[in-house]
Amino acid sequence: MALQKTRAGNYPEWFQNVITAADMAELSATPGCMVIKPWGLGIWERIRFILNEKIKETGHENCYFPLFIPLSFFQKEAEHVDGFAKEMAVVTHSRLTAKEGKLVPDNPLDEPLVVRPTSEAIIADSFSKWVKSYRDLPVMVNQWANVVRWEMRPRLFLRTREFMWQEGHTAHADYAEAEAETINMLSVYADLAENYLALPVIKGRKPAHEKFPGAVDTYCIEAMMQDGRALQAGTSHFLGQNFAKSANIRFQNKEGGLDYAYTTSWGVSTRLVGGVIMTHGDDEGLCVPPKIAPYQVVIVPILKDSLKSESVMTYAAALKEKIAAVTYDGERVRVKVDTRLKDATDKYWEWTRKGAPLILEVGPRDVDKNGAVLRTRVLMNTPEWKQIVAADEFVATVSDLLTQIQEGMLARARVRLNKNIVTNVQTPEEMQAYFANQNIFLDEAGNTPTVAFVRGKWCGDEDTLEMMKTLKISVRCVPFDQSGTTGKCLMTGREATLDVIYARAY
Amino acid sequence: MALQKTRAGNYPEWFQNVITAADMAELSATPGCMVIKPWGLGIWERIRFILNEKIKETGHENCYFPLFIPLSFFQKEAEHVDGFAKEMAVVTHSRLTAKEGKLVPDNPLDEPLVVRPTSEAIIADSFSKWVKSYRDLPVMVNQWANVVRWEMRPRLFLRTREFMWQEGHTAHADYAEAEAETINMLSVYADLAENYLALPVIKGRKPAHEKFPGAVDTYCIEAMMQDGRALQAGTSHFLGQNFAKSANIRFQNKEGGLDYAYTTSWGVSTRLVGGVIMTHGDDEGLCVPPKIAPYQVVIVPILKDSLKSESVMTYAAALKEKIAAVTYDGERVRVKVDTRLKDATDKYWEWTRKGAPLILEVGPRDVDKNGAVLRTRVLMNTPEWKQIVAADEFVATVSDLLTQIQEGMLARARVRLNKNIVTNVQTPEEMQAYFANQNIFLDEAGNTPTVAFVRGKWCGDEDTLEMMKTLKISVRCVPFDQSGTTGKCLMTGREATLDVIYARAY
Repeated sequence: MALQKTRAGNYPEWFQNVITAADMAELSATPGCMVIKPWGLGIWERIRFILNEKIKETGHENCYFPLFIPLSFFQKEAEHVDGFAKEMAVVTHSRLTAKEGKLVPDNPLDEPLVVRPTSEAIIADSFSKWVKSYRDLPVMVNQWANVVRWEMRPRLFLRTREFMWQEGHTAHADYAEAEAETINMLSVYADLAENYLALPVIKGRKPAHEKFPGAVDTYCIEAMMQDGRALQAGTSHFLGQNFAKSANIRFQNKEGGLDYAYTTSWGVSTRLVGGVIMTHGDDEGLCVPPKIAPYQVVIVPILKDSLKSESVMTYAAALKEKIAAVTYDGERVRVKVDTRLKDATDKYWEWTRKGAPLILEVGPRDVDKNGAVLRTRVLMNTPEWKQIVAADEFVATVSDLLTQIQEGMLARARVRLNKNIVTNVQTPEEMQAYFANQNIFLDEAGNTPTVAFVRGKWCGDEDTLEMMKTLKISVRCVPFDQSGTTGKCLMTGREATLDVIYARAY
Repeated sequence: MALQKTRAGNYPEWFQNVITAADMAELSATPGCMVIKPWGLGIWERIRFILNEKIKETGHENCYFPLFIPLSFFQKEAEHVDGFAKEMAVVTHSRLTAKEGKLVPDNPLDEPLVVRPTSEAIIADSFSKWVKSYRDLPVMVNQWANVVRWEMRPRLFLRTREFMWQEGHTAHADYAEAEAETINMLSVYADLAENYLALPVIKGRKPAHEKFPGAVDTYCIEAMMQDGRALQAGTSHFLGQNFAKSANIRFQNKEGGLDYAYTTSWGVSTRLVGGVIMTHGDDEGLCVPPKIAPYQVVIVPILKDSLKSESVMTYAAALKEKIAAVTYDGERVRVKVDTRLKDATDKYWEWTRKGAPLILEVGPRDVDKNGAVLRTRVLMNTPEWKQIVAADEFVATVSDLLTQIQEGMLARARVRLNKNIVTNVQTPEEMQAYFANQNIFLDEAGNTPTVAFVRGKWCGDEDTLEMMKTLKISVRCVPFDQSGTTGKCLMTGREATLDVIYARAY
């Protein structure tokens, strides 16, 4: 009952296979856009709920800004860039009219509108109205929104034309406070990734050529997928006074003079769901960390014998209530009884492919014995494992089991990450040889991909960019933990001090 | 410190004034679109949270469908309608390019995309792929999304070009089940409106000419604003097999034959926030029902004396913790300490204009006495009322106070609604005379508008539509509670059996 595609066989096809097998999302009739189905959206809703609390706790309030941004807002950016061209959806008409039986766009707009690819420009415009004095600062807002970027090679969850995200935007009276905010939100993201999604990440700064346009510094968290590629899992931008100057966010300072504010922006998206799949999925399907699982426990009643079905259903419902009364990580355990009139084995495999952390099968015999059959591939690493449990004992231990799964998933992913940050590549020649290989998930047991992350020196010179392009790699980040030593740049052999992470990336 | 605009003076201007004074939303740089600020969005987030639970409890799961709908999806609809023209945002290009220093839309799409005004067509397309057999039915999904309709006269919360809503979509194997779903969701909306938003509503069916295009029946809840106008607060559509036929949602029935499914759709939007303002606001600002208030209790520390500020802040924080430990309506009380270094009187008036249910002022003297000054215009109907309370006693009674406010607000609105459904208009002449008046909020004490709802007979004939247009009224609904009597149509004098609600509407 394993998936048709395996990680070792073809990693990208396996990724698609998991999404289909776990019924998370599918392509829609609109090119490049996806339909997110309940299990996929449920994971995103959990991430949203958890992160929303953290964003509020750190002093931000939610707002909502328009989907459409007037074209003129991009004019300034375009003036600074030679050959400016951006792949964005542009609304040019405000009516659909039937002409000779054919529908056509009608009523052209005076000024075309861009569907937001990100909202710095339009939010800075609001900030410029809100901020007059130092007393109005800081302004700290966040929005949950859909954004659109006209991707040429769409992939479910990783790169769709429309996706969902959260974007935080803040304005501050001084440089240091704004910079601290940027770093602080990166820590919030790292906490979310590691302690909820069970994705260990490397925190660092992007090299200058990979910064967000207009940012002074872009910080990021980078995770490692099972094929050794990096996934940028969140970014936090320190924008200095650049956006404040172009949108005129000025305030009277304490001394009575006029200053431009310092702004930041930071975001994570539904791409995180892709990261969860590629980090925790296996050849049986998805595994969902309990803290972000829409259901942490699924009860599958065996309804073969229609005479006994009623008592099985009653028993399952009572068991559900007992489990739902248990607290795990400050919330009630999310438990579902799968009441569909389908074969129980089919139902079991569905929930296995979806990666529900704990599955309980209950049949007529379990009713008599006040028990259940516990199955947990996520914990035991095989879909075949099962164990008869007493219902009361399960209820008493369910919270511990969930903790064990959550921690176990993080530990496993952390071992993989640490094991695959290669540090013994010493010269440009060794670097060439290392990345001559393909990114393939190879070793079933050790989860060791052929090519993963190289940690080494980088001189930062312009000519390294072309070299990296040839190897299809990039500097993922300059990690916060710098050694301070001097060594040879892995691209040029020149003397270099920066420690960086080189990798291929999604 | 009352608002500049009053309800009696100019109701529409008062409405705008409340939104500004309570800092709920504002117009944006994008024509016709609004920026929703924390207090306005917070109310919507509460509505969303409450309704989302109810939607799940009634067996629906959340999905997410694309923002863009291919133009061809509207072709079928257009074929049935003479002079089809709809005000919708149309995306025609996928790139923005600088040409001779000027940004222009570039890369025209093969097929233009419409920004969803509602999602029946694209969701029906997904359903057609999901549904093969009666075993796949019912399909019951919901999405929280932004939608766009190119309104010509935008008004904050009531009619903006982009707004947020929830749209539920279901498919069923038989007529009766789908119709029952439609009615059931209308009841969920009525429960939300009455028991959470404190908006009493009339449940009914829309007359044929006001149905959603393609629906067999449209049901609605109608609320009365303080100027006597109706606000359609939610709709639920029974779509029969119409959408199933055009999208080919067919399934194998139990007998092995092929049937088209029966579908429904239903939605409420951020317009509800407008309804809350126009129902509960007064000449001091907004009043928010506790169940949907972002904060139910606001503590305003008086920080005049900087020597004593620290002890006041410590006291306020401790009081907050005690209040936050109390449960109201199944959740912890939402309480905020307004720590801003602003004059306490200014802060009090800000929260008064926002309509926070309970406000506690605490100063140095309150710290000594373990007390606070309670202020609650929402309950006492005046911003001047205040009372010294013991902190412990407040904590012990806060849940009761909130209940009292919530129930009081509903009761007041219900009295107003019942009082202003006029039933003694008997003839077309009296009807003309009644609606010759303007909708004006008149009487401060009794909240009695000049013109409100008329309940009476309607023959349903085509020629009444033009008559209603002249009076600027419409049939809001055919209420579920029909008298079964025969009488004279208030438009034509012809014999009629239908009881309807006539009114002007937002």
